[in-house]
Amino acid sequence: MAEQTTGEDLSGLVQNLVARAQMAARQMANLSTTIKNDALKRMAEALEAEEGALTAVNARDLARARENGLSSAMIDRLRLTPKRIGDMACGLREIAALPDPIGEVTRMWRRPNGLEIGTMRVPLGVIAFIYESRPNVTADAAGLCLKSGNAVILRGGSEALHSNLALRELLAKAAAAAGVPEDALQMVPVTDRRVIFELLKQDKYVDLVVARGGEQFIRTVVDHSRIPVIKHDKGLCHTYVDAEADLPLAANVAFNAKVQRPSVCNAMETLLVHRAIAACFLPSFCERLRGAGVEIRGCPETCELVPWASAATEADWETEYLDLILSIKIVGSLDEALEHIARYGSRLSDSIITTNYHTARRFLREVDSAAVFINASTRFTDGNEFGFGAELGISTQKLHVRGPMGLESLTSLKYIIYGEGQVRT
Amino acid sequence: MAEQTTGEDLSGLVQNLVARAQMAARQMANLSTTIKNDALKRMAEALEAEEGALTAVNARDLARARENGLSSAMIDRLRLTPKRIGDMACGLREIAALPDPIGEVTRMWRRPNGLEIGTMRVPLGVIAFIYESRPNVTADAAGLCLKSGNAVILRGGSEALHSNLALRELLAKAAAAAGVPEDALQMVPVTDRRVIFELLKQDKYVDLVVARGGEQFIRTVVDHSRIPVIKHDKGLCHTYVDAEADLPLAANVAFNAKVQRPSVCNAMETLLVHRAIAACFLPSFCERLRGAGVEIRGCPETCELVPWASAATEADWETEYLDLILSIKIVGSLDEALEHIARYGSRLSDSIITTNYHTARRFLREVDSAAVFINASTRFTDGNEFGFGAELGISTQKLHVRGPMGLESLTSLKYIIYGEGQVRT
Repeated sequence: MAEQTTGEDLSGLVQNLVARAQMAARQMANLSTTIKNDALKRMAEALEAEEGALTAVNARDLARARENGLSSAMIDRLRLTPKRIGDMACGLREIAALPDPIGEVTRMWRRPNGLEIGTMRVPLGVIAFIYESRPNVTADAAGLCLKSGNAVILRGGSEALHSNLALRELLAKAAAAAGVPEDALQMVPVTDRRVIFELLKQDKYVDLVVARGGEQFIRTVVDHSRIPVIKHDKGLCHTYVDAEADLPLAANVAFNAKVQRPSVCNAMETLLVHRAIAACFLPSFCERLRGAGVEIRGCPETCELVPWASAATEADWETEYLDLILSIKIVGSLDEALEHIARYGSRLSDSIITTNYHTARRFLREVDSAAVFINASTRFTDGNEFGFGAELGISTQKLHVRGPMGLESLTSLKYIIYGEGQVRT
Repeated sequence: MAEQTTGEDLSGLVQNLVARAQMAARQMANLSTTIKNDALKRMAEALEAEEGALTAVNARDLARARENGLSSAMIDRLRLTPKRIGDMACGLREIAALPDPIGEVTRMWRRPNGLEIGTMRVPLGVIAFIYESRPNVTADAAGLCLKSGNAVILRGGSEALHSNLALRELLAKAAAAAGVPEDALQMVPVTDRRVIFELLKQDKYVDLVVARGGEQFIRTVVDHSRIPVIKHDKGLCHTYVDAEADLPLAANVAFNAKVQRPSVCNAMETLLVHRAIAACFLPSFCERLRGAGVEIRGCPETCELVPWASAATEADWETEYLDLILSIKIVGSLDEALEHIARYGSRLSDSIITTNYHTARRFLREVDSAAVFINASTRFTDGNEFGFGAELGISTQKLHVRGPMGLESLTSLKYIIYGEGQVRT
């Protein structure tokens, strides 16, 4: 199989992929909504029809993962079950049901010289998507890129190679039956990591790289890319329980933010508690956390209130645990909380629990994060939860898009100008 | 003066600049519109009040430019005249009159679980702006970044160093009198080019690099940057005169696109003419171009109609002349014109001249350029002409913004979410 490819082959292989994707992108930009939605429905049907074949191919990836000694958590992420395949089909149908972003004229104005200038939403062109080992992401990415009129080159986790190639084949063929160019959905067919570096050089062909993964991996991608990159990396999220908070509500929301799925980027890592309610709130809340197996690392005041907590070090405020560990700091004011979040946060997802109108407004305005919550769990920073049907990732940078990346984030606006002979003087 | 700085000094100097800019950016994000507009008006007044001092400092740059043998075109661009200083002041007052983009909630929707999710416009943070030798750009950049709530680090052309430092001093002090942090407007005080590479490493501090300049220079910036870059480089613009065109209108618009200011990115470089009207249109139109000193390089058919034209080579279709030279190609159909533009264009500014509704609509939809015109000059792709008051540059890429970069292009959208205790299940 292609895994024995040499460096030179890799370069040719990538050249071929990107050139074909660019050709397909031009056709994609002009596809009607009817064709795109028909393709999405056919893709959903194909997934359901081929459920057995897909789980059989997936079994090969799973067997290899076991041989290679991957953790059970990794193996679970890699697994395609009938339920997961059903969810993928469901996701594609949801994308079909969303409005087509392409061609929307978001505004139009008239200039003194009579020119009418409008902004029209258009596809980006060719998107390269580099992601981790969950094959179900493949269908979401294919669906979002198709609906937004883009061609996409997928590069999933190497452990999922066979599952991903089978998925690509199935989805591209189903889309082709509706009139979508098959080259608009490509999958890099090799696991060799050098292929990523080849891909990152193709700025003549690729308009955007979306990269999901750990901080170190993403830094490598950014350092090597000539193509604009949107990163999906670190999430160090805070919940701040204000002096004027509904404490049972605070306990529920903060518990959810930490415990419901601790391994993801929008889980809470640090809890900030106003001194005025700390003694009343923390002992019982921490007891509840302990019951869920959460380890507490607290500031000195926290440790006084929760004797079984260990002492937090400076490093704790900077650490994305992605685990059942929580750092807790008691603060004297909203300003101190804002200062802590500005200093240590990753600017992804932060929440305040308060009943005070003015405090809520200041937090909303002054916290510089992709998603700022009042009285809700940080865990909601997610494309599905926001109503986008699916997401390509969660942008942890500010340019182009912040937070969950739905259809609109895969588009750009071009200017369209209606004249009647105007010249510049 | 600082020009003798060593490599180590440069690194420290840049570290200091970016750290101070980041501190200032946090304050900038929370400034009221009143303070920002007051600052812009004071900046305009200061320019007018210090006109004499500015032209005196500018004279030093001009003298040095003459010593170094710069072209008269370059020297003209470098010059600050009372008229140009007045225009800069005028530009700042126009920016003051524009609505403040920050804090705008562009939309808000309710989810089934009762969460209300909105998108709020926020500043990008710290912008590094690398540009060429026109000191009047300095005031535009300072004004746009201030109004959009960003801190900015300016790095103008080295020939304009003294003028730019004087402008920065004047503008930052005037803004400070209104309550704007002085560190929000920084100017790199050295001409050493290594400082650019230092700047491009500061991804912890700088959120966006906007780079204006030649294609080679921009490629170097992109290759070395860890920070997202918006490029303003090549413009290879087309005008297509359709078979069903108002020919006198076509001649006026195309003449303007080529001749009014040939040295800029939105000037026309290639004229495409439908075969059906070529014999009727080209001879007299080319005569008019000849009268303005334009050299013609034509396809074989063009050369038959215009005997004094020279023969275009393949390289001509790919060349941004930035000069009084025009390549002309006769095409047999709209499709052939679209194909030519897709193959050779730089996707900046392209125009069709036609009276046919269907042809106009197809051109508008299918040409993948930042600005697509019907019956108007490509020269209008410009922030002032679009009504943005000024522009930081003209984006020649698709991510984040295409075309003229006004206030909105210097912002991002964050999600704000109002809950009442929602947790994720």
